[in-house]
Amino acid sequence: MYESYWQKKGDETTVVIPGWQFMSYFSDATRLCWFLEPEFAKQIVRLHNVVGNAVTENRHIVVGTGSTQLFQAALYALSPCAEAEPISVVSAAPYYSSYPLITDCLKSRLYKWAGDARSFSKNGPYIELVTSPNNPDGFARRSVVNGSEGILIHDLAYYWPQYTPISSPANYDLMLFTVSKSTGHAGMRIGWALVKDEDVARKMTKYIEINTIGVSKDSQVRAAKVLKVISDNSEGPNEGDSFFEFSYRVMAKRWKQLREAVQQSGLFSVSDFPPQLCMFLNRVFEPQPAFAWIKCEGDIEDCESFLRGKKILTRGGKHFGVSPKYVRISMLDRDKNYETFVRRLSTIRS
Amino acid sequence: MYESYWQKKGDETTVVIPGWQFMSYFSDATRLCWFLEPEFAKQIVRLHNVVGNAVTENRHIVVGTGSTQLFQAALYALSPCAEAEPISVVSAAPYYSSYPLITDCLKSRLYKWAGDARSFSKNGPYIELVTSPNNPDGFARRSVVNGSEGILIHDLAYYWPQYTPISSPANYDLMLFTVSKSTGHAGMRIGWALVKDEDVARKMTKYIEINTIGVSKDSQVRAAKVLKVISDNSEGPNEGDSFFEFSYRVMAKRWKQLREAVQQSGLFSVSDFPPQLCMFLNRVFEPQPAFAWIKCEGDIEDCESFLRGKKILTRGGKHFGVSPKYVRISMLDRDKNYETFVRRLSTIRS
Repeated sequence: MYESYWQKKGDETTVVIPGWQFMSYFSDATRLCWFLEPEFAKQIVRLHNVVGNAVTENRHIVVGTGSTQLFQAALYALSPCAEAEPISVVSAAPYYSSYPLITDCLKSRLYKWAGDARSFSKNGPYIELVTSPNNPDGFARRSVVNGSEGILIHDLAYYWPQYTPISSPANYDLMLFTVSKSTGHAGMRIGWALVKDEDVARKMTKYIEINTIGVSKDSQVRAAKVLKVISDNSEGPNEGDSFFEFSYRVMAKRWKQLREAVQQSGLFSVSDFPPQLCMFLNRVFEPQPAFAWIKCEGDIEDCESFLRGKKILTRGGKHFGVSPKYVRISMLDRDKNYETFVRRLSTIRS
Repeated sequence: MYESYWQKKGDETTVVIPGWQFMSYFSDATRLCWFLEPEFAKQIVRLHNVVGNAVTENRHIVVGTGSTQLFQAALYALSPCAEAEPISVVSAAPYYSSYPLITDCLKSRLYKWAGDARSFSKNGPYIELVTSPNNPDGFARRSVVNGSEGILIHDLAYYWPQYTPISSPANYDLMLFTVSKSTGHAGMRIGWALVKDEDVARKMTKYIEINTIGVSKDSQVRAAKVLKVISDNSEGPNEGDSFFEFSYRVMAKRWKQLREAVQQSGLFSVSDFPPQLCMFLNRVFEPQPAFAWIKCEGDIEDCESFLRGKKILTRGGKHFGVSPKYVRISMLDRDKNYETFVRRLSTIRS
């Protein structure tokens, strides 16, 4: 979906990297996160200030090989060292299907997946993942566990104006972002964390040092360029042609098409979202999430299998900790594929 | 050290990446390693064939964020799933100081560091890391544990003709390589594994999917270009100006300087290595490792502290599982820094 925008932008975001540049492990040995490219750090701060979606003052920036690696770095940094038992990691269902897989991948003694945050009632410390807007269902979220020893990780991958109204700058202790959802450059494998506590930022950096000895310089350089162009165009005279205007319009159109298709079919339902004022786009609109979270109504129990039979590939609710009557579908595919999907969906009858 | 060569090569290895390219998570969805760029895979096979340092026939290639990530992917893939106890991971001392740190970082229940392979005598399955030429001491190695249930990982980061004579193509089940040691591009964070067993390659790919959802496309594209130029120049009419000729000469000069400095000082010793025929350079020479592994003779017990007092920064033997009388020093620093180091070393007296 984003490809066509960047094609239209032509050479503005092209990078040229000579063979002798960025050869070292180090980007800036004096920084806490010594493998973070200074120009990328600068553009991260600038973009958050332009969009107004996150507080960057008094935050350490840690770069990661996608926010996936940063999530693991956060678990490593936040787990108590001396505990006999692994710390519980929870998130309210439906939760991002990769969280349990990542958390339990190496059967760590530091932390373990403990499922749906809503049914979590164990005493003592725990880590709660708050994804807002949420993957898969698109709702804005707050922490739900009512414990005194909770440590929060805020995954804000989708807190950008093409997906949801930016009501105020997020101001949490540990916030994760990624270029794959903000600019569409999944292939770069670049994410960043804004971290209040210096010691946590240091431990996250340590994890990334042990895991991959830093993060691709080439992709950081490229990401810096893309973020710069987005900020430039958002502030400049061609504001109407800005990245977020373009992607907001595409998402608005796609959600309109989706709701029409759902209505035409009559077999499915999707949530309504309350409209809100976006301080960045200066406009009131309903959230238009990166995923459609669709429920099969009636007596279809396994929505994923049912839709597979109709040549629509989805991910079933079970992966997200809820009923198989739900499925998740990406709203970010190329135009042609998206058109095919809504056409197929609209013609399904019971 | 490599920087000056790539500067001299000018634009030959420059990459230009437009903003709309390599946006997807996928490189080739039909491949086992679906995030491996096809051009990079092609250049890996070509370079191994040109240099003759590894068999690539009937091997799966898995790309990683440096060979560090591939080492973890290998541990994940080779650990038995159903065991009650973690599998032991061993390597003969002196071993690469990061192996124990990486292995035990998350306190996995799948595997655990079990120290020096030479003193390992437990029954049952184990994983042995064989680094050849070895980091830190530069010697060629074979597995040392005499067990029937050993699984081997061969770390061949330094099996390139600037460091050691290439006697024959390595032909092991699981071999790790990295651009940081072969071409000098540490900042790319790119490594690759040659894997015989399909199931192991699949599980390694799965680990990298869970850990970082693939590997930077930008760095793969750049690495492909650098490998291509190395192969082109090794085969072409300007063979004398080839990358391996250049780096062989620099290493030969530096080792000569090091041995002279050691002799002048009289306080230290370095190993001699038996000369061998290099099939690639078609020349008999002694290994000239990427690290100097220096022993303080006489009654200096803590060689690292002693040298720090002389303004020489090293890594002490304890990190590598042996006596603090040993230290490791990089032989790959920039010319100026290397000259300073040998000058300082040569003037140290008891």
